[in-house]
Order: sequence, then structure tokens, then C-alpha cells
Amino acid sequence: MKILKNRNPAVPGFKAAGLDCGIKNKKIKDLALIVSEVPANAAAVFTKNRVVSPGVTWSRRALSKSGYCRAVIVNSGNANTVTGPKGYDDCDAITKKLAEELGIPQKEVFIASTGIIGVPLPSEKIIKATPKLVTELGGKTKNWTDASEAIMTTDLVSKSDRISYSFKGKRIVIGGITKGSGMVHPNMATMLGFVFTDAVIDSKTLKMALIEAADRSFNRITVDGDNSTNDCVAILANGKAKNSAIKPGTPGYREFVKALTKLCKNLASKIVLDGEGATKFVTVRVEGGKTRKQAYLIANSVATSSLVKTALFGEDPNWGRIFCAVGNAGTAFDPNKVDISLNKNRLLKNGNPTNIPPQKLVKAMKQHEIDITIDLKCGKEWEEVLTCDLSYDYVKINAEYTT
Amino acid sequence: MKILKNRNPAVPGFKAAGLDCGIKNKKIKDLALIVSEVPANAAAVFTKNRVVSPGVTWSRRALSKSGYCRAVIVNSGNANTVTGPKGYDDCDAITKKLAEELGIPQKEVFIASTGIIGVPLPSEKIIKATPKLVTELGGKTKNWTDASEAIMTTDLVSKSDRISYSFKGKRIVIGGITKGSGMVHPNMATMLGFVFTDAVIDSKTLKMALIEAADRSFNRITVDGDNSTNDCVAILANGKAKNSAIKPGTPGYREFVKALTKLCKNLASKIVLDGEGATKFVTVRVEGGKTRKQAYLIANSVATSSLVKTALFGEDPNWGRIFCAVGNAGTAFDPNKVDISLNKNRLLKNGNPTNIPPQKLVKAMKQHEIDITIDLKCGKEWEEVLTCDLSYDYVKINAEYTT
Repeated sequence: MKILKNRNPAVPGFKAAGLDCGIKNKKIKDLALIVSEVPANAAAVFTKNRVVSPGVTWSRRALSKSGYCRAVIVNSGNANTVTGPKGYDDCDAITKKLAEELGIPQKEVFIASTGIIGVPLPSEKIIKATPKLVTELGGKTKNWTDASEAIMTTDLVSKSDRISYSFKGKRIVIGGITKGSGMVHPNMATMLGFVFTDAVIDSKTLKMALIEAADRSFNRITVDGDNSTNDCVAILANGKAKNSAIKPGTPGYREFVKALTKLCKNLASKIVLDGEGATKFVTVRVEGGKTRKQAYLIANSVATSSLVKTALFGEDPNWGRIFCAVGNAGTAFDPNKVDISLNKNRLLKNGNPTNIPPQKLVKAMKQHEIDITIDLKCGKEWEEVLTCDLSYDYVKINAEYTT
Repeated sequence: MKILKNRNPAVPGFKAAGLDCGIKNKKIKDLALIVSEVPANAAAVFTKNRVVSPGVTWSRRALSKSGYCRAVIVNSGNANTVTGPKGYDDCDAITKKLAEELGIPQKEVFIASTGIIGVPLPSEKIIKATPKLVTELGGKTKNWTDASEAIMTTDLVSKSDRISYSFKGKRIVIGGITKGSGMVHPNMATMLGFVFTDAVIDSKTLKMALIEAADRSFNRITVDGDNSTNDCVAILANGKAKNSAIKPGTPGYREFVKALTKLCKNLASKIVLDGEGATKFVTVRVEGGKTRKQAYLIANSVATSSLVKTALFGEDPNWGRIFCAVGNAGTAFDPNKVDISLNKNRLLKNGNPTNIPPQKLVKAMKQHEIDITIDLKCGKEWEEVLTCDLSYDYVKINAEYTT
């Protein structure tokens, strides 16, 4: 797929800010705030990990109480996870202070954290910085850049994007920022995504749309449905576009989901491109599946195989590892029907090797973008999982994270 | 656990040989043979991968036809997998030739291969070497060393062990050789194990015992039940010990399973110790489980987490990753009851951090053997999964396997 540069994610009616409140012990930003001028309908999807951050618990409760949201506050450098009862109290104190500063109900605040686990959150630093953070809110490119930079951890670059489309004469804008770069177990290195739109859409429909879009984007850079303790993607819709309300099952809903999916896929691709130590951008596509689940399990098995990923890093034409990973997906298929291609070089036809010259395959593997296509020839369903290779630098980054 | 040196795996009534037949293009052994003087009862467990080597198909059929076995022939350097119809024909030709040389029925031969996938097996080299291989059969230490060396691929050392015990006045010997060293996805880099005993035990009971022993050993260095296309563990029992036949549910069966499990665990530990790029030997033990399955899923989730494994390599006291992996196991438990220790240093008590000084933890992590103990406090079941860390060298070895 085509990789897009960062676009300014500004959406009418939303303001952003980001600053250094001192969590990271470095002169880099670690606190972000995005605020909607009016109450916005909101929805979010959270980690499925059984161990969750108090921030996840707090935000899930607040959202279920109110269904809408005015402010999103995010700190990086400390995940506020496995921090005992203090962790939840910290969320409460931070959101209380922010709500006071903004003059909004506390339950309309959404809080998220990313960084090291098991270290108490220095909430006093966040609380102290809150008035300044509110003062700095603005709608300019710089404000959004500040916010997207302030949520980074091991990310090498900030990640944002925007898309807009017209439907029945109304222009609808969707913008978002995201972070995450631990790619072999992406969901164990926190992945956060915040998406904003000026569409008129109620929170229930918004959630349907978010789930649909995430299942073709953020959830397709996921290992086995595994999730970190802090993962979440939230969306806020402030209604400023004044379109007629988007309702499920309508053409307007399909258009919205299409645009939202595209935006989420761009954001998710940026996470993969910035994968820890990544040197390749890999798309594993399974076609001809009997069910989406079967296609997904096989794509995921290939995309998470350390042996496949190290071979891609080494540009080693050891393609048998791909077929081996297909067989390991824990789902039935007919090995004698399977075709496999890498960047349009057919490696396997009907389960038999095509005896492609290794030199030709090595040449294909030298490209930065690698497309592995697996055709099961037993149906019409497809799934794509995005991943990167497994390099020395992945090990280096993760062996030295806290020290 | 205590790591044992290689012991001579010789068992009365079995002979072994190993030589260089030229598959590897290096002057190193690549063909092994073990023969029982008399027909031996036999059992085996195979890979669960949907893509299997023709050798697996061939051996499974032969064993199901005969229930016993006289000869095991193994080549390294070529897995004979994804090799089209030729792969099965090659198995047939090799076993036919060997059966002729030994003067035994073809169905009493067991064949296995390990090495690169997708390259036709040079069966003519194996067939040509067979007469010499048979000539070299012997019961001495050197013969067994030759055989255990001839099944190695990326293994740095050969792996063998022997155990004996007395029951009702009869001494029973169990010996075995094994290979395997791809440890992040161990079962995708072929793991082979061959175990020999002089016990009197029928093949059905032998299979029961093998399954029980493998579930506390070879299958506990396994990722998610994933398997390579070639994995197998086979056991042959020739009855030379003249004990009264071992029957299920008897004290004699319990003694046999206990000894077999110990041997298999020693052999499996040797695979982990020789894990590709491994610098640590890691035992993840989950106690207080409600069911064995729950305990296993959690132990496996921790043992297969790239983030945990890179932290162990880097001796990085980022212990929150362990709890995160516990939560990711996809099984229910109460996070507020969990205790976690590393080499007897308590990190977490009732789901809360004990605030152990990082320096103390770093010191504990400098040891070569790392024991991670997780107590769920919801029952009495336990499971242990053995693993190693994830190092630069793992990436190096796997990025350059074929080139």
C-alpha cells in the first residue's frame, strides 16, 4: 500500500496542546490534551488484556456513564499500570483537576497513559502542568504536532493523518493521531489512537463504525488478539459538519466507515513503518478464504512468525518458512490447493514449489515493501495483516528499555 | 533445574551409526541410523502442523500398520518438506533400500528429516551411503555420538541422555538423543527426539507413556501447540530387560513414566540450553492454577513473549512485562491475587508491586538460570514451560539460515 506522509489532523471544533511536564526526565514532551469546543459523542475500543491500566478502567466507566466526551488527556513515559490503588486515585485526581480548569463535568474527560509498567505515576507533575496545558490549547498545525509528539514513547516519528469527503453536499472531516512502535508484540507495547470528526453521528453508531474500521486496520497489526494493558482507540464526533445524522445501514454510514477505515489504516500503517527496528513494511494478504476468521488466523500466523520475520530482515529466500507458518495457524485448509507469492513472484502453486531461482527471490526481497499473498482457493473471504521484519535493533530496543 | 551433561544413551540391544553422506556440502555428519536387534514395540508423537513432511506421513503410516519398528533413519540438512510427490517417493526408496540391507520388512523402518524446506531431498546420496551406514552400526559410545551428531542442524552441541531404574528386581534402561535449537518458535525449527528402552511394554501402553512424558517435557518447550512440518518424538522398546510387562495403571507403569519423563525433560532442557542465540535458561512455573490448561496458557504466554525474552537478554528489570504477558494469556484469573517472583525475589504480591529495588532485581537477572514463578492462588494445578532469552544472535542465526 501507499504510505502517506503525516497530514495535519486538525478537525473543526477541536483544539490540541502538548508539553513537557517532567515525567520522562528529558526535555521532551510527555503530556497531550485534545479538547472539543462542544460535548462530542464518543466511543472507544480497549485492550482485551486481563491486566488493565487504571486509566482504562477509569475511561471506560466515564464513557459508559456519559456516552460523550469533551477532553482527552494522555501522558507518555509512565503507563500507570500495576500501580496499586494509587493508580486509580491518580486518574481521579488528574481528571478532576482538568475538568475544573475546563469547566466541564469530570466524566467527560478521557484519560490514557503509555510507558513503563509498575512505577507509580507522578500525578502531581501532571496536575501542576494542567493549567498551562489548557492555556496552550489551539487549532494550529503546531498545536496538533505538539500533541502527537507528546504521546510518543519509543516511536521515532509522530503519527497523524486527516481525511475528508463530501456526502449530500456536506464536507465531513476525520483526523487522528496515534502512537506505538513495538511491533513483534505490538499490543504489548501500548498502541494508542485518537480520532476526531466533525460528523453528526450518535455514540452508538460511532462505536459500530469504530469497531468495523478497527477490524480492518488497528486490529490487523495485532498479535493473536493480544493487547497491552493500556491499548485503546477512541473517537470523538462533535457534529460541526451539520450533516444529516449518520445512521446504521444507510449509504451515509457506508461512506463514513469507508473514510474512517482508510484513515485508521493509514494511521496503523504508520505504526508498522515505525516498528521497533523495522527495515521492511510487510503486508500479508490471505485470499480465497472460506471465512474471514480462517483468512485472519493464517495471515496472523505468517505475520507473527519470528522465523518468517528474521528471514525477511536477512533477505533470505527461505520461503518454506511461510508455508510452515500457514500450516501452523490452527485452522483447516487444503495444503494441495495453496498458492503463495512474494512481490508477485509465485513461490508455491497448488502446494508445490515452483522452483523459482533463489537469486530472483533475493532480488524481490530487497524491496522495502514486501507483499506476501496466500491464496487458499476455498472461498471468497480475505484478510490482511500488516507487520514488519525482526531485526537486531528490535532486540536492542527491547533489551534496554528501562535501563 | 539441574542441567545434566550428555550421557552415553546406549541401551542394550540397540546399535547406532552416523556419517557424512554429502547432503550438507560440508564435511560434517548428516545421516544417522539406530537399529534394534529384535523387533521393538514402538510409538511416536508427530507435529500438529497442517503442512507435514512426507517423512512424517510415511512413518505414521508404517507405524500404524506394524506397531513396531526395527530401524530409525534420520537425515539432517534437508527437511524433505514441500517437495511435491517426489518427497514421498524418496521416503519409499530410502526405506526400501535400508530394509533390504538390514533384511527386515520395509514397514519396520522409521524415517525422519530436518533442515531446509522446499528443496528436493538428494535421496540418491542417502541410498548410496546406506550399505556403509549399516556396516558402521555399533553399540559403543562413539557410535551413539556419531548418530546424535548426525541429526544436528543449527545445534551447537549434540544432545543425549540415559536413565535407568530397578523395579521388582529388573533393571530398566531408557536412553535418547534429540536435536533442535530454534527456540523462539521451537517447533518451527524441527525438534526431533528418539528414545530407546529395553523395557517390556506393548506399543499401546508405550504411546500412553510417551504422551504423558512429552506433556511434561518436549511439549513444554512448545509455542502455542505450534509445530514444525517435521517434529516428532519416537520411542522403541525391545523387551531385553525381561521385566514383567508394564501395564497401564500399575505401579510399574508409574515408575516407567516417571523415569521416561525425567529423561525427556533432560533432553528437552538440552534443546533450550542450546536455543539459538540463548544466553539464559528460563523456567516459567505457574502454580495455584484452577486447571492445568489455565496454568499452561499463562506459563506459555510469558515464555513466548518477545518483550519478556528481550528484557531477560538485556537483564533489564522491566518486570511489568511479565504481568502483562500473564494478562495476555487469554484465560481468566484474578489479577488481584497474583504473586510473581524471579529467582526468589518477590516482584508482585496480590497484584501489587513490592517495590523491589531495581538494582537487586538486575543482580538476580545476571544469573544464567532464571526461574519465574507465578502463583495464581486459585487452585492446585501447575505447569512449567522452559524457554530461553531473545538475543541478537537469534536474529543473526535466523536471518542467514540459507544464504
